[in-house]
Amino acid sequence: MAKDKKVEQITDMDEDFAQWFTDIVTRAELISYSGAKGFFILRPYGYAIWENIQNELDKRFKELGHVNVSMPLLIPESLLQKEKDHVEGFAPECAWVTFGGSEELDERLCIRPTSETLFCDHWQQTVQSWRDLPMLYNQWCSVLRWEKSTRPFLRHREFLWQEGHTLHATAEEAIEETERMLDVYAELYEDVLAMPVVKGVKTDKEKFAGAERTYTVECMMHDGKALQNGTSHYFGDGFAKAFDITYTDKNNRLVHPFQTSWGFSTRSIGGIIMTHGDNNGLCLPPRVAPVQVVVVPVASQKPGVLEKATELVSRLKAAGVRVMCDTSDQSPGWKFAEHEMKGVPLRIEIGPRDIEQDQCMAARRDKSARQGESALQGESALQGESARQGGVDKLPIPLAGLEIEVKKLLEDIQKSLFDNAKANLTRNTRSASTLDEIRIIQNENGGFIKAMWCGSRECELKMKEEIGVTARCIPYDQERVGDSCPVCGKPSDKMVIWGVAY
Amino acid sequence: MAKDKKVEQITDMDEDFAQWFTDIVTRAELISYSGAKGFFILRPYGYAIWENIQNELDKRFKELGHVNVSMPLLIPESLLQKEKDHVEGFAPECAWVTFGGSEELDERLCIRPTSETLFCDHWQQTVQSWRDLPMLYNQWCSVLRWEKSTRPFLRHREFLWQEGHTLHATAEEAIEETERMLDVYAELYEDVLAMPVVKGVKTDKEKFAGAERTYTVECMMHDGKALQNGTSHYFGDGFAKAFDITYTDKNNRLVHPFQTSWGFSTRSIGGIIMTHGDNNGLCLPPRVAPVQVVVVPVASQKPGVLEKATELVSRLKAAGVRVMCDTSDQSPGWKFAEHEMKGVPLRIEIGPRDIEQDQCMAARRDKSARQGESALQGESALQGESARQGGVDKLPIPLAGLEIEVKKLLEDIQKSLFDNAKANLTRNTRSASTLDEIRIIQNENGGFIKAMWCGSRECELKMKEEIGVTARCIPYDQERVGDSCPVCGKPSDKMVIWGVAY
Repeated sequence: MAKDKKVEQITDMDEDFAQWFTDIVTRAELISYSGAKGFFILRPYGYAIWENIQNELDKRFKELGHVNVSMPLLIPESLLQKEKDHVEGFAPECAWVTFGGSEELDERLCIRPTSETLFCDHWQQTVQSWRDLPMLYNQWCSVLRWEKSTRPFLRHREFLWQEGHTLHATAEEAIEETERMLDVYAELYEDVLAMPVVKGVKTDKEKFAGAERTYTVECMMHDGKALQNGTSHYFGDGFAKAFDITYTDKNNRLVHPFQTSWGFSTRSIGGIIMTHGDNNGLCLPPRVAPVQVVVVPVASQKPGVLEKATELVSRLKAAGVRVMCDTSDQSPGWKFAEHEMKGVPLRIEIGPRDIEQDQCMAARRDKSARQGESALQGESALQGESARQGGVDKLPIPLAGLEIEVKKLLEDIQKSLFDNAKANLTRNTRSASTLDEIRIIQNENGGFIKAMWCGSRECELKMKEEIGVTARCIPYDQERVGDSCPVCGKPSDKMVIWGVAY
Repeated sequence: MAKDKKVEQITDMDEDFAQWFTDIVTRAELISYSGAKGFFILRPYGYAIWENIQNELDKRFKELGHVNVSMPLLIPESLLQKEKDHVEGFAPECAWVTFGGSEELDERLCIRPTSETLFCDHWQQTVQSWRDLPMLYNQWCSVLRWEKSTRPFLRHREFLWQEGHTLHATAEEAIEETERMLDVYAELYEDVLAMPVVKGVKTDKEKFAGAERTYTVECMMHDGKALQNGTSHYFGDGFAKAFDITYTDKNNRLVHPFQTSWGFSTRSIGGIIMTHGDNNGLCLPPRVAPVQVVVVPVASQKPGVLEKATELVSRLKAAGVRVMCDTSDQSPGWKFAEHEMKGVPLRIEIGPRDIEQDQCMAARRDKSARQGESALQGESALQGESARQGGVDKLPIPLAGLEIEVKKLLEDIQKSLFDNAKANLTRNTRSASTLDEIRIIQNENGGFIKAMWCGSRECELKMKEEIGVTARCIPYDQERVGDSCPVCGKPSDKMVIWGVAY
């Protein structure tokens, strides 16, 4: 009866990182493929992670005075075309609506790839006085970009995100806002997703279509590649001029306001997988995990076990822990592997022997892989209490102090995940001063490469052509790792982080 | 300086109800028109109401075991066509995507008008065993329906909603779910939105495309018309058969599951306006109001006034009240009118005289209209503390008991709004036993008309042709208001509520 479901083995991440990623995405039931190419279904477990990210971000946005709105899904073609750089960047990947019912439309409508043009159009009509500023708007929605090749979480034709759009009286205020929102993203990554970031500014080549300046947070994945998600753009008054947005300032002059936008998407979930996951599956930071603790009754047919398990769940729930009890008729061994696959940070086991000793056993997800023992193997051995003899590091917790101990463990797991990711980032960031050094690092190690840059687009393009890396950012934290641009040899005082990006 | 903004007079609701509605929608800054016909912008104040509704519903859904997911925005034409009745109902009002970038698509994709087909397609691939059931899914999103004529909140081409979709092992369980979710909607309307409902079942003519049975909650607006929003559909196994969804039951047989769906949209905000609004503007039930209390300092240039106002705001915020302080440089009179227009349930005024007496003054939004004195008139008289002499019923509140008193008042406003709406519903619901009686009631009063019905579509169509009313529902609470169908004269034991719907 317990045998109609199996926790399937996933591909080893060192053998095939891409397949390992896809295996986790599908087997942890985060995403399903849909009938339309490049469109994905965010399943309940995947969506619950997104809801937690949403709650954390939304709280931060609102504390800073932002309000949510809902703009239309569709943009008339003529509206999209108002800002030259912007339309050039986005029109090639727009999906176009040409029929409403059986009627062909007079003007094509594109499904929003991003909503700058809609916000500008709205503000053109509503902003009048300095009293109306700043406008601090945000929208939670999905956007469409008709990508050629797609991958779950990393590149969808439709993805969920938030897009913040703000309007300010001065350039200074707008730049402050742009930087402030980048800090919000950085803090979310580090404190909630346990992902260390490199903060910086994009080169002109890499900036957002229509922006004067794009700020970014770059994260490093297990395989040394960069994931970019969480960018903040300063527009100056370029959009305001293109859309004729003006306001009357305190001196009664009609002037243009200054604008920003910033976005954070479900891509971040791909980042969580590739930062914390291992060969046992997903590994979720407690602060973003839909289920922080799973309670597994062992030998649950014995009297009192299920009751005790239920009691522990109630106690943890009352203490504000996101907890579930797995009372299904699968074997404990199957359950251990299943919840490890799904990345539940902490497993609590409770059986007759534990009850006798007024304790339960805790198994940390972040330790399960490092024991060198895959919980996926030897399922047959993992039946009943015999499963308890496995090599996984388990900790007895006295029931009296359960809530405090569990919360401490969750905090410790959160911190340890961050520390490990930080160590990976540090280990895989190298400095180079010549093109040869860069080439060797890129070929042998990958990761992030710090090098000086003269600032010319030509040298930037050459790095892409010859080495295959792009400028991830000009980091806030500048160092001198040389005196000249490794490409052209000109004296340079700007350090860039180069890498390969998802 | 305080004069560059004006609270504009809105149209009298007795003169032109439709214009009164539009005036409130735009002047309370709930909605703006967008560049694409029939697409509306939900502005921060309107969206905040929707967020409160979302929070209340989402909490209830989750307590009942539902989980949120995200399905694609686009449906391949072939998928939409799998269920015959469903496609007939929806295809005529679909928006079609025909181009992705510069490439014409092989198959047209429609923007979801509703997502039954997507959920079915997903379940066809993922549901296998009785262990997978029930599937209790929900999605928060927007949908598109290419309506010919549109009105803010009531009929958009794009609107925000939630759509619940569930799959069950038996017909009984699915019907229970359908009825349970209708009860959730009814409870939300009555307890949160202060809108009394009539619960019932739709006639076959009025049911959802593809459903076996549609349950509905019908609300009555100020003008006697019905607003339908919040329907719950039982599909039997019709969709499961059309999409080939099967599962292995406990006896190892391959069988079809049974399905439901249910939806609630931003239309409800239109209902709030037309249930509680008056000639001073919007009037929001406290449980859904973005701002429950506005604190207005009076004679705020006097020492200590602003400090005291800020202190009251902090105290109320700490007590869990959604409160704001209006410290703008507008006159108190302007602020009174503005916040009445925006339907803030309770206004707290605090000035030097109040501070001396250790009290503040409270003005209830739900009482402001009934005093026969529009706060919009006589702005010039409403300057400083002289404003306090107006005819509006104001209540002194000792500062010592502020939190308790404010919460009591908010509860009382909530209840009084419901009672008034209930009285309107009762007053405007009439029984009739002949076609002539029905015609007279419809011509002279409108509202809801209870009458017996034989059950034939022919008689239902005649009611529409001859009287102009449609069957709102066959209510749960049945009465005998006659013995025979007023149209054909056949003996009838089914009572229907007839009316005109938005």
